[in-house]
Amino acid sequence: MKKHVAIVAGGDPFHLPQLSNYPLIDTWIGCDYGAYLLVEAGLPVDIAIGDFDSVTPAQLAVIKKEAASVQAFPVEKDKSDLELAIDVVQTLNVASLTLFGVTGGRLDHELSNIFLMERLKKAGLPITIIDEHHQIDLFLPGVHVIKDDKVFQNYSFLALSDTVEGVTLENAYYPLTDATITRGDSLTLSNKKVKDDLILTFRQGVLLVIRTDLT
Amino acid sequence: MKKHVAIVAGGDPFHLPQLSNYPLIDTWIGCDYGAYLLVEAGLPVDIAIGDFDSVTPAQLAVIKKEAASVQAFPVEKDKSDLELAIDVVQTLNVASLTLFGVTGGRLDHELSNIFLMERLKKAGLPITIIDEHHQIDLFLPGVHVIKDDKVFQNYSFLALSDTVEGVTLENAYYPLTDATITRGDSLTLSNKKVKDDLILTFRQGVLLVIRTDLT
Repeated sequence: MKKHVAIVAGGDPFHLPQLSNYPLIDTWIGCDYGAYLLVEAGLPVDIAIGDFDSVTPAQLAVIKKEAASVQAFPVEKDKSDLELAIDVVQTLNVASLTLFGVTGGRLDHELSNIFLMERLKKAGLPITIIDEHHQIDLFLPGVHVIKDDKVFQNYSFLALSDTVEGVTLENAYYPLTDATITRGDSLTLSNKKVKDDLILTFRQGVLLVIRTDLT
Repeated sequence: MKKHVAIVAGGDPFHLPQLSNYPLIDTWIGCDYGAYLLVEAGLPVDIAIGDFDSVTPAQLAVIKKEAASVQAFPVEKDKSDLELAIDVVQTLNVASLTLFGVTGGRLDHELSNIFLMERLKKAGLPITIIDEHHQIDLFLPGVHVIKDDKVFQNYSFLALSDTVEGVTLENAYYPLTDATITRGDSLTLSNKKVKDDLILTFRQGVLLVIRTDLT
């Protein structure tokens, strides 16, 4: 059966949502300190992975006691802990992948994690980033139904590629018809939906959709 | 004479660096609540600009008392407070533009602000974003000397365009020679310099350089 997988990275715990609010997730992977955060949240740790340079020996002992599987790597490696975890995810039969703990903290890591979504989405991985105030989705050309969200009611659309072309947005307070969005445009920020789900269609490019409950 | 201009936006004050640490800046522009933050920091407010929907009436009274110039706009407008401020900056003879208070808070705003750098840089505006832990610069093709930074000693390089081509990086712990960086690559994160200033050269694309003091 396809799995709903979450990776909890070791970002600032301040930016984590309440992880127990995601009962659909059946496979929890903890990256480094993220594995300890999973234990603290009372959730199962199906896989703990990383170089574990961000946990204390006592925390590592807890992780080893609680995790169903521990995969420890040397500190000097070509891949980040998150990328190692994603390698594992790509061996699973995945219905959805949610990343927690990848925003806040270092801006270079945050941007790198958001940009990484593009490659994974292009490889067919249905990936979403969630923190305490945002949900980030990345879309490739096609028709997309953006399901209503009771919590994150502000919707922003940002071109990640140079341009996103042929953008039509239905059921939005500020609808779009065959529009072009250029990276750096701010006119497509802070939209709302007026009914049902938003329907987003575009022809070319890579588009980020960020939902937030902040005003 | 060319001016060293700073814009202080109304982002989370928690992410502001100590503004008095930037004595080179001779023109301070406060966006909305950012104007109040400037007053609180004991700095001059040369221009206060925005719709002032994020300040209390008492704070607005303080801004009006302290600012050399106040430009108030209606709340419903096509441009953000930051874009209004940048319009003003573009009428000045600018040696450098530094943005404070544009990171943290809403992720859609943060990304939009970072992406906006590209358009401004292409328009010839020498722009930098600084927060309490990061300096973000955006580079276009050419040869760039990245001046030594005593505070932010970690250097990360991220492609903002699809690819950045012909990248050569000298004086770095992990040097590069005629490399291609693709958006989403993480191999060019967390570099250090080994001597003097870093020298960055590339042929094609848009490259973000993020310096941080975080490890």
